[in-house]
Amino acid sequence: MDQKAKSRVVIVGAGFGGLLAARTLAGSPVQITLVDRQNFHTFQPLLYQVATAGLSPGEIAAPIRWIMRKYHNVEVLMSEVQDFDLSRRVVKADSGEIGYDYLIVAAGASHAYFGHDEWEPFAPGLKTIEDALEIRRRVLLAFELAERQAASSKHDKKIEQVQLNFVVVGGGPTGVELAGTLAEISRQVLANEFRTIDPTRTRVVLLEGGPRLLPAYPEDLSRSAEEQLRFLGVEVHTSALVTQVAPGAVQIGETRLPAAVTLWAAGVAASPLGKKLGAPLDRAGRVLVNPDLSIPGHPEVFVIGDLAALKDENGKWLPGVAPVAMQEGKAAARNIASELQGEPRKNFHYWNKGNLATIGRAAAVADFGKIHISGFLAWLSWLFIHIFFLIGFRNRLTVLIQWAWSYLTYERGARLITGDKHLPGWEQVQAEETEFATSGFLKK
Amino acid sequence: MDQKAKSRVVIVGAGFGGLLAARTLAGSPVQITLVDRQNFHTFQPLLYQVATAGLSPGEIAAPIRWIMRKYHNVEVLMSEVQDFDLSRRVVKADSGEIGYDYLIVAAGASHAYFGHDEWEPFAPGLKTIEDALEIRRRVLLAFELAERQAASSKHDKKIEQVQLNFVVVGGGPTGVELAGTLAEISRQVLANEFRTIDPTRTRVVLLEGGPRLLPAYPEDLSRSAEEQLRFLGVEVHTSALVTQVAPGAVQIGETRLPAAVTLWAAGVAASPLGKKLGAPLDRAGRVLVNPDLSIPGHPEVFVIGDLAALKDENGKWLPGVAPVAMQEGKAAARNIASELQGEPRKNFHYWNKGNLATIGRAAAVADFGKIHISGFLAWLSWLFIHIFFLIGFRNRLTVLIQWAWSYLTYERGARLITGDKHLPGWEQVQAEETEFATSGFLKK
Repeated sequence: MDQKAKSRVVIVGAGFGGLLAARTLAGSPVQITLVDRQNFHTFQPLLYQVATAGLSPGEIAAPIRWIMRKYHNVEVLMSEVQDFDLSRRVVKADSGEIGYDYLIVAAGASHAYFGHDEWEPFAPGLKTIEDALEIRRRVLLAFELAERQAASSKHDKKIEQVQLNFVVVGGGPTGVELAGTLAEISRQVLANEFRTIDPTRTRVVLLEGGPRLLPAYPEDLSRSAEEQLRFLGVEVHTSALVTQVAPGAVQIGETRLPAAVTLWAAGVAASPLGKKLGAPLDRAGRVLVNPDLSIPGHPEVFVIGDLAALKDENGKWLPGVAPVAMQEGKAAARNIASELQGEPRKNFHYWNKGNLATIGRAAAVADFGKIHISGFLAWLSWLFIHIFFLIGFRNRLTVLIQWAWSYLTYERGARLITGDKHLPGWEQVQAEETEFATSGFLKK
Repeated sequence: MDQKAKSRVVIVGAGFGGLLAARTLAGSPVQITLVDRQNFHTFQPLLYQVATAGLSPGEIAAPIRWIMRKYHNVEVLMSEVQDFDLSRRVVKADSGEIGYDYLIVAAGASHAYFGHDEWEPFAPGLKTIEDALEIRRRVLLAFELAERQAASSKHDKKIEQVQLNFVVVGGGPTGVELAGTLAEISRQVLANEFRTIDPTRTRVVLLEGGPRLLPAYPEDLSRSAEEQLRFLGVEVHTSALVTQVAPGAVQIGETRLPAAVTLWAAGVAASPLGKKLGAPLDRAGRVLVNPDLSIPGHPEVFVIGDLAALKDENGKWLPGVAPVAMQEGKAAARNIASELQGEPRKNFHYWNKGNLATIGRAAAVADFGKIHISGFLAWLSWLFIHIFFLIGFRNRLTVLIQWAWSYLTYERGARLITGDKHLPGWEQVQAEETEFATSGFLKK
C-alpha cells in the first residue's frame, strides 16, 4: 500500500466516540491520527466510583496507545488541540499543525456553572479522573477533619453536624449516583471506623432545580429513584434552585445550607472547540450537525458525541450518553469509508437499547422503553452492562472482583487522600451559624 | 474497665513499625492514639510498582482507620506531628497537643540529597505515593513528548536519543528495582505502541557511587544483580559518583550525561522529628536507642523503625527495612505491656529471616544467610513473601491477579499521566549537545 496515496483522517478526542471511530476506520486504507490531551481513555460511567473511593483511577482508565496498539494505521498523539483551519484543512495543536483529508471532532463536554465559574473552587464537578480524585480528596478529608475537630478540646456538636453535611447540586444521573454512594459510604463503609464522630449522622442533601430527579427518564422511574435515595439516607429536594455557592455553604433563594463539601452535577457545556469550527451551535455550545454527522458546508468535517447536537426520528435531541457517542463514532467512520469506496453516505440513526442510572449498592433504575425496572435487578443489569463494556480494558476481571469484594464486605479500598490537606470552605463552615442545620425548611 | 485509669500510648507514624506496635498493644488495657499525616498506610516495598505503572496507588495502600477498625482502643488521627515536650509528656501536632504516658515514635525516613536539596526538582526520590505518581508522570510523559517531537517536522534523531535517556542515581534496592523495571517497560511493554519513536532504544543508566550494587548484600549477589540488570538492558556504572544534577542532565565528575528523566535513589535521611526528641543521633539523623528501644533518660519514649539506630549482636547496624521495623514495633509494644503488668522489659533482638531485592520480571536476588538465590526462584520468593505480607489489605487477591496478568501479557495498566503536562528539564534536554550520548566514557 502506498502511504502517500492514503487519505489522512484526524480524530480529536479519545472518548467513546473517538475510539469507536478510530477502530471502525482502522481496517480502511487511511492513515489515522488520534489526538487527545490525555494519554489515557477514561471510562466515564464509572468515574463516580473513583470519586467515592470504590475504584482506583487505573481501573477505569486505559492508555490510548495500548487500546490502539494493534491498529498499525492509527497514530496516537498526546497533544492539546487549540484551533482548526478548515480552509487549509489543518488542526492546530500545541505540538504543531496536523493536516487532514477528513476530520472527526469528538471533543466532548465538561461541567458548566451557568456563568458562575467562580463557584468551581467550592463545588467541583465530575468529568475527568482529576475531578474524581479532587472529589475523593474532599469527601475523605471532611471526615478526617471532623474527627480531628471532635477529638480536640474545641469539640462542638453543632459544628460537627455541619462538617458532616454533603450537598450535591443537580439531580441527573451523576448527581443521583454521587448522592447515593456518599450516603452509603457514611452509613455503611465508615460507620465503625471513627471513635469520636458518628459517620452515620452524615447529612447528604441532593438538590434538583427542576420538579423531579432524572428528568430524561419516565416519571415512575424518577419517583423510584427518589425513593431508593431516601432509603439510602439521602435528603432529596426538588425545585430547589441553587442561587449561590460560597465557601462552606450553598444558597437556595433565601435559604442557606451549610456544607463541608459541595459537589456540582448540575450543568454540562460542550467543549469550546465546537465554536472554532464556525458551524452553528445550540445553546449548550453543541455543534448542529447534518444528518450524516458532518457540519454545514464542510462534508469532510464530522462532529460526534457530546459535542454534536442532532435530533432523532421523533424530533427529540439525542442525549449526551456513551451509546450515542459510540454509535455516532461508528457511523461517521463508516461514512468516510463508504465515500472512499465511492459509495454514498448514510444518515445517522440512533438505536436506543435502553437507559440505566445507578443509585447505589443494589439500587438503580432502568428504562428499556416499555419495560421499566427498579432496584436490585436494574442494578444488576447496570453492573453487567458496564463491566461488559469495559472493552479494551485489561482489568475487567479485577474490576469485577473488586466490586464483588466491596459488595460483600462494604469496603472501599481506594480511600486515599492524596494532594494537599486543605479543604476549601473548611474554615468558613466551622464559623458558620448552625441554626439552619437544625431548623431550616430543608431539614427533614 | 475504667477509661481514666488506662495508660495513654501515642504512636507517631503508621508505617510497618507503628502499625505493628498498635496491633500488639491493642489487646492491652491501654488507650492508643495512632497519629499519621496521611490517612493511609503505604506498603513501601511495592512503591516502585506504582512509580512504574504496574499497580495503582489504591492497590498498595490501605486506610489506617480500616486496618485498625476492630481495635476499639485504637484512635486514629490524621495530623502532622511537629514537636514533642518530653517534660510535659505531650506530642505537639497541627491539630493540637496530645498527652501520653508512653510514646512510640516511628516517623521513618525520607530520601536525602546529601545537602543538595536543589537537585530534588530534577531528580525525584521514591518514598511516598505522591513521589511514585510524580515518577510515573515523568517517565510516561518523556515517551509521549519524544513521540510528539519525533512526529513533528523538527524531528532530530540525536535529540530523540537523549529524550529517551533515563538515569537512576543509586544502586541500592530501590535504584536496582527502578532501573530494572524501566528497562523492561521500554523494551517489552511499550515496544509496539509507538509509531515514530522506538522505545526499545531507550537508554536506562544506573549510577552507583560505590564499587558495587546492593552493598548490603553478599558480593556474589551484587554481581548477579548487575548481570541480571544488564540482561534486561540496563547500563550499570559503579564508582560513578554524581557531582551535579541539573535540568536535563547529570554530572559525574567531568562527564555530563544528558537525561530526560533522572530518578534519585541514593540517599536516605531519618525524619526531622528525631532531632526534636533531644536524644543523641547518628550521622543520618537516626536516634541512638537503648537496647530496649527507649531513648536515654526517657524510658517512656521509644523510637523504632527507620528512625532508630541500633546494633545487632555482631555490632552491625540494623538496616532500614520493613522486617526490622515490624519486629521493633512488636518489641516496643511488648515492653510497654510488660511494664504495665509489673514485668521487666526485654532487649530487642532482630531475627533476620533473609533479604530480598527484586530487579524485574522474574529477576531478583535473595540472601538467606548461607543460601544465596538469584533469578526466577528468588523472584518467586520475593513475589509470594510480599503479596503474603500485604496483610490487612483487602486487595491481596486483586494484586495477585493484576500481577499474574501483567506477567503473562507484559501489560502495565496504570499508565496514566495525571497532573500537569510539563516535564522539568525537557527544554534543556532538547537543547543539549548530544555528543556525550554517542562518545562518553559511560557509553557501552
